Amino acid sequence: MSERPEHDSAPATGQRGPAEHERREQIIAAADEHFRHYGYQKTTVADLARAIDVSSAYVYRFFESKQAIGEAVCLMTLKRIDDQLMAIATDDSPACERLRRFYKCLHEQGFALFFNERKLHDIVVAAVSEGWSSVAWHKAAIADALRLIVVDGRERGEFERKTPLDEVCRAIFVTLAPFSHPVLLAQNPQEQIADNAAAVSSLVLRSLAP
Amino acid sequence: MSERPEHDSAPATGQRGPAEHERREQIIAAADEHFRHYGYQKTTVADLARAIDVSSAYVYRFFESKQAIGEAVCLMTLKRIDDQLMAIATDDSPACERLRRFYKCLHEQGFALFFNERKLHDIVVAAVSEGWSSVAWHKAAIADALRLIVVDGRERGEFERKTPLDEVCRAIFVTLAPFSHPVLLAQNPQEQIADNAAAVSSLVLRSLAP
Repeated sequence: MSERPEHDSAPATGQRGPAEHERREQIIAAADEHFRHYGYQKTTVADLARAIDVSSAYVYRFFESKQAIGEAVCLMTLKRIDDQLMAIATDDSPACERLRRFYKCLHEQGFALFFNERKLHDIVVAAVSEGWSSVAWHKAAIADALRLIVVDGRERGEFERKTPLDEVCRAIFVTLAPFSHPVLLAQNPQEQIADNAAAVSSLVLRSLAP
Repeated sequence: MSERPEHDSAPATGQRGPAEHERREQIIAAADEHFRHYGYQKTTVADLARAIDVSSAYVYRFFESKQAIGEAVCLMTLKRIDDQLMAIATDDSPACERLRRFYKCLHEQGFALFFNERKLHDIVVAAVSEGWSSVAWHKAAIADALRLIVVDGRERGEFERKTPLDEVCRAIFVTLAPFSHPVLLAQNPQEQIADNAAAVSSLVLRSLAP
């Protein structure tokens, strides 16, 4: 494999052995499929080994536990959202517009994960409640993309510059929780969350007015 | 009992029999104590009946299920928070100051519930995830108190009046989730939540500036 695997740029808790190895990719692909169909809880390392025709011991040469495989799948899943958020943050439309789309993308992608990939959602809930490193990575990616929009909006004169940048970014980040946390997304109807996101992003934009 | 029981002003799902009855109060008091000590899951209706020296059948004359008793305890617990929020909303300090204290009270009371009354917290988590009516009641009480502050701040000229009142109240309400939802409170250190609340209330106040 000449291409750098997508999850390689993020911390890979519990992984071991050669970093770029076709077998590692195969295990992750098999895990992704099994977790979607049967759920994380019901899948065993033996199931994954069987799927790619190796022994469980062989799988353990790459991942120290089932959770380490779960981490890799979670990282891959969340990274798809992060990439979209970063694309929004770095395009050249007005910062106001990017901020609105940022909220929208976050909950829409979260819902896609929740409704279309229900069993994968369960893995993300476990990851969040148990503090897996893939979640810390996801949060950092959201914060980074958000900061780019705020800094750019300030430079363009779209946003006020009196309030310390860190405070502004921190506060906006916290207002994203109802649109990104899997438990909160699961407890509210999608339409209501979309309306809430529109109302909160408008509130945030009023707070950013110069 | 001549006094109107505290929980009587709220919807009492699954309760039956005479509304004001000493036995009902005794059952709720016994449940409150048992849930704190042993947790909601481990307590049975038979345990509660034994504690007040009646039969389980007698308990079922007042509550149709253990969940109905849980609802009553949850309602009582959440109502203590609601009363404090309403006291803040209706005092005569500037609306800006009341809004700051509103955020503070919400997470501090939530933490008191979580750390000091850990097993009661578990009942609230169940109530939120299963959509018990006590939670709907609690949300409505928070929204009502918040609205009083916003309306008053607008009348006093502290807050802008261009944005529709409903939209403003809805957006602020959504920003309260990280400080009121039991799952979110449990997943972050208290100090960080206090700092986040200060940052978010400042952001909201900037958005409300006339």
